[in-house]
Order: sequence, then structure tokens, then C-alpha cells
Amino acid sequence: MKAIWQKLLTFVFVMVFTAVATAQTNDPLPSWNEGASKQAIVQFVEDVSTRDGSGFIPSSERIAVFDNDGTLWAEQPLYFQLMFAIDRVKTLAPMHPEWQEQQPFKAVLEDDLETVFSGGEETLLELIVTTHAGNTTEEFDQIVRDWLATAKHPQTKRLYTEMVYQPMLELLEYLRANDFKTYIASAGGIEFMRVFSEEVYNVPPEQVIGSSIKTQLELHDDKPVLVRLPEIDFIDDKADKPVGINQYIGRRPIAAFGNSDGDLQMLQWTTAGNGARLAGIVHHTDGDREWAYDRSSSIGRLDKALDEAQSEGWTIIDMKKDWKHIFPFSNK
Amino acid sequence: MKAIWQKLLTFVFVMVFTAVATAQTNDPLPSWNEGASKQAIVQFVEDVSTRDGSGFIPSSERIAVFDNDGTLWAEQPLYFQLMFAIDRVKTLAPMHPEWQEQQPFKAVLEDDLETVFSGGEETLLELIVTTHAGNTTEEFDQIVRDWLATAKHPQTKRLYTEMVYQPMLELLEYLRANDFKTYIASAGGIEFMRVFSEEVYNVPPEQVIGSSIKTQLELHDDKPVLVRLPEIDFIDDKADKPVGINQYIGRRPIAAFGNSDGDLQMLQWTTAGNGARLAGIVHHTDGDREWAYDRSSSIGRLDKALDEAQSEGWTIIDMKKDWKHIFPFSNK
Repeated sequence: MKAIWQKLLTFVFVMVFTAVATAQTNDPLPSWNEGASKQAIVQFVEDVSTRDGSGFIPSSERIAVFDNDGTLWAEQPLYFQLMFAIDRVKTLAPMHPEWQEQQPFKAVLEDDLETVFSGGEETLLELIVTTHAGNTTEEFDQIVRDWLATAKHPQTKRLYTEMVYQPMLELLEYLRANDFKTYIASAGGIEFMRVFSEEVYNVPPEQVIGSSIKTQLELHDDKPVLVRLPEIDFIDDKADKPVGINQYIGRRPIAAFGNSDGDLQMLQWTTAGNGARLAGIVHHTDGDREWAYDRSSSIGRLDKALDEAQSEGWTIIDMKKDWKHIFPFSNK
Repeated sequence: MKAIWQKLLTFVFVMVFTAVATAQTNDPLPSWNEGASKQAIVQFVEDVSTRDGSGFIPSSERIAVFDNDGTLWAEQPLYFQLMFAIDRVKTLAPMHPEWQEQQPFKAVLEDDLETVFSGGEETLLELIVTTHAGNTTEEFDQIVRDWLATAKHPQTKRLYTEMVYQPMLELLEYLRANDFKTYIASAGGIEFMRVFSEEVYNVPPEQVIGSSIKTQLELHDDKPVLVRLPEIDFIDDKADKPVGINQYIGRRPIAAFGNSDGDLQMLQWTTAGNGARLAGIVHHTDGDREWAYDRSSSIGRLDKALDEAQSEGWTIIDMKKDWKHIFPFSNK
């Protein structure tokens, strides 16, 4: 009998030691340098998830929202969805001979992006609506899927879905491991993002909030399908980000992450709630490993939100200082 | 040593026996009579959740949508949300002296519901919009919460949240126990239903889809809040039910339950998907324990959807025959 008890005791010691050792080495954010940003994130997560702690928040209320472009994946030199729209114009051009003379399509076909952008937001919306409508939701899913599987970023020559930020993937996972529900809340197209959100971010389609065009139920070959109409339904940006979040979730998040002035109201609305709150801004400071831009950029302008982050003490994530790695494929 | 092995063996036998006994007595749908409806539900759930089975569907795709009025809770003699609107007109009347002479408010204040309903859908929408707007999302939540805690059904004298169908509560739970995500998809107001969906149905606010009015971000005392505007945003009914489901979930459900013609397109769209599908219609056949109505009712009319259920072989849940109990408070 003595031998059995000795073996059992040894086994228990080994188990306990292994558990302790694992806990010590198991940094949930290995791509983050030690510093104020990482510390603020870990402190917040421990505060809200420590039962009996003063900052405890039940898991049903642990909602975290993330902007996509510039926050979870890159957005330079152009929002990736605009790259898709441009490629789509070229694909569809043979069926639209009138585009050879009609702006903004003519400029797109001539790779004259300066003219495309000179038209402002209205032109870009026309481009988006034209290239994103006219098919069923299932067809559109397949079109985006095919594009994502083959199109390459003009500078890195990587797939767009590879240009996601490794530290943010770890943050998403860390929050979920602490019973957060992670959502995307982006001005990007909801049906565009849903194609890759589950595979790339582990965020299922039902946890993606974004801009949308209207859809309509129709019968195709006697089967009901949803057809995408060339009509804007909702632009999930600026003061409408809280509107979209409330519409889809029905709760005020306790944590929000963005990178531009388009995220300002989302961050303000999130932090105005009662109890522990975390607001994070990804600041693009690394011109070597990624891109460096903020107050004067036309893509992802970060100006008012940077001021507010500084005055309100939000967590400013400095990509150059805070991140060991940027992309999953890079060792730097 | 022999004694130890004997004890261990006895222990294992007891455990196995207990497990088998529990499985046998642990009917997940105890309020359902044995019959075709219960059998179809159990068969479907076992088909989609049996790994290696021909009907297997991964849990991420196990989305089930439920209409609310007449499917999860009662809807007679009037949709409960209309009862709320009527009570709200009476509460707000002192601040609106003009309502004494202005329809449909005058008729509401005189309890002349016949006149109220003679105005058709447009009148009802005016009533809803007027009584549901003008406050913040948090204020509206509290107003509905207070009403639900006190208002009583005119005939049963029960709280409205008690008038939910016990067999459907069991069905929701049974589906969730088999890794389904359960959603509400109702023409009812999304913010109205979200107040009680989690407590009553165990369906969190982010899994409620419904009709909505527009909201707008405003600063109140320097704090950002969402204000409810007197303007319809979306009516989640008929051909727009699939639109709403796709907008919020981004996937086609594999199971859907409704009770009226307003659910027809949701059921058609659900069953048109590939693989195992379940469509259920709650048929109000029990005039003694609940209400008996279908083809000619102005509330919850079930006519075309009943024809289609019969021709397509959908599961028609006959409340009188299929349900042992109707409400949680009743023993019959």
C-alpha cells in the first residue's frame, strides 16, 4: 500500500509544479513588450474578471468591440476593401463598355487613383455600391472569398488576410479566454468582413457589425435568396458607431479599440458607461515595420481621437514601442 | 489489492448504472406529449449533432430562430407590446392635452379599441412610434422593465412574462444543450424584447432581432447617450424577416419556428438551405387552455403558412394535442 501512496503523492506534486510553471510562462500577450499599454490591458482584464473584486463585471456584460481597418489589419496604402472594389471594376468592365468614358470607373480602369479620390466620399460610395450589389448574399460571399484567396497587397505581396496584427490576435484571444465576447465594429462592409472574420479573427459572422447595403428577398429558380441592392442601408462610422453597436448588441461595451477619428464616438460612448472601462487606440508609429501616420493622413486620420486619448488617459498603443512583432509572418 | 479492485469495480458499475438511468428519465421536453412533433424535433437535433452522421452540421452553423408573439409567448387578445403602448398613452396623456381630441390617442384614452384598430397598420405604427420614442435607450429599458413588473394580462391577471409557453422554453434549452445558438426574430420591437429576453428565455440581447426605430447619439450632461427618434428604421416581418436575420446573423438558420403568415418567408428561406432543416409552426388549437385561432384571426393570422406547412411537411405543433402544459404556472 505504501508504494501506491508514494506514487500518488509524487504524481500530485508533479501536476502542481507543472501547473505553476505553465502559469508563469504562459504570457497571454507574447508579442507585446512590457510597458504601460500591456499593463493597462492585463490590469483591466484581471479587474473585471476577479469575482469579489471591486471592478468585477459579470461575463454576460463583457463585450469588447474592435474597429477593423487599421486596428485589426492594415489599411495602407488604401483600405483593402477599396482594393477589392477596384479589382471588381476591372473584372466587370467587359460587361460595362460605358465605364470606358464614365467616372469614376474610367479613372479606376486607367489606374488613375488620384482622380478617383478627388471625388471625395460620394465617389467612393458609388464605387462601393456598384461593385458590391447585384448578386445574392451567397454569390457575394464566394466573390469575396475568391478575391481574398488570390489578391496580394501591392507592397508586401502578401494575402490581405495575412496583414493582420499578431498582437491584436493575441488580445482578442486573451479577452475571449476571460469570457469576453469579441465583436468587430467597423465602417467596412459587414458582408465583406464576415467572409474572413471567423477564420482570421475567430470572430463569427454574427459578431461582426459594419456598413451595409440593402438586401431584398427574391425567388431564383423557385428558391428564396437575398439579393444585394445598390442602395446604402447604414454607414457604421463616427457618431453612428454607437448606434450600430446598440442595434446589433443591445448593450454598451466595456472595452473598445480603434485607431482613427472614426472611432472617437465609439470610444467616448464605451467609456461613459458605469464601472471599469478600457479604451485603446492603435497608433501607427512604425514606418519601418508598418506605416507611420496620424493627424494628416487621408486614410485612418487620427487627430481629435488622439487629443482625447491623451486628455482622457486612454491606452495609446504605440506600434513601434509596444509591439514585438507586427504581422504573423514577420519576426520583427 | 483484491479488495481495492472489487471496490473500484463496484464503483464503476454504480456510475454506469446511474448514467444510464439518468439518460432514460431525463426527457429534455417533459411538457411535450409523445407524438409526431416531438419526434420530428428530437430526430432533427440528433441528426445534426451526431458526428459522423449523414445529417451532421457543425455547431457554429446550428442557428435556430424563433418568432416571439404567439410562438414563445401569447398574443391574445392583443399583442402585448400594444398593451404597453396603450398604457403608455395613458401615462403620457397629462403632458399631451391635444390627445383628448386627436386620433388615435382619443380612442385609446376612451378605451375604444375598435376605433384604434379601424385605422389599420398605419395607425398602430403611429401609436408605437409616439410611445416608444423621445427617451434614451437606458430610459426606455427602465420604462419597459417597470411596466413588465406590474402590468397584468386582462384575462389571466398574470404578468405578461409569465404567459410564455413552457414547452417552448424547454425546446430553447434543449437546442442550446445541443450547441445551438437560439435567436428571436420577431416583428416586435427589438428594444422592448431585449428587456426580458435574457431573464425569461435565456436569450441574451445580442441574440434578439426585431423591428426598430432610429436612434441618434447625443450629449446629455456631457455624456454620450442614444436617443430614440420617432422614425421607423426597420419592420422585421414577412419578406423582411430573412433580411433581418441575414443582417444580424450573417448565416442562414437551420431551424425556424413561427406561428403566423408573418413567419412564412423566414420558414421558406430557412428550409431552402442545404442539409438538414427544421421548420415548426405553433398552431393555436386550444381554446380552453389558451386561445384557438388561425385563418381568420386579425392577430397572428395563420393561413398561407398553414397551407405551406401541410404541403411541405413542416412540423405543425398542435398546442392542444402536443403540449401537456401551456404556461409555466398551469398544471394543465
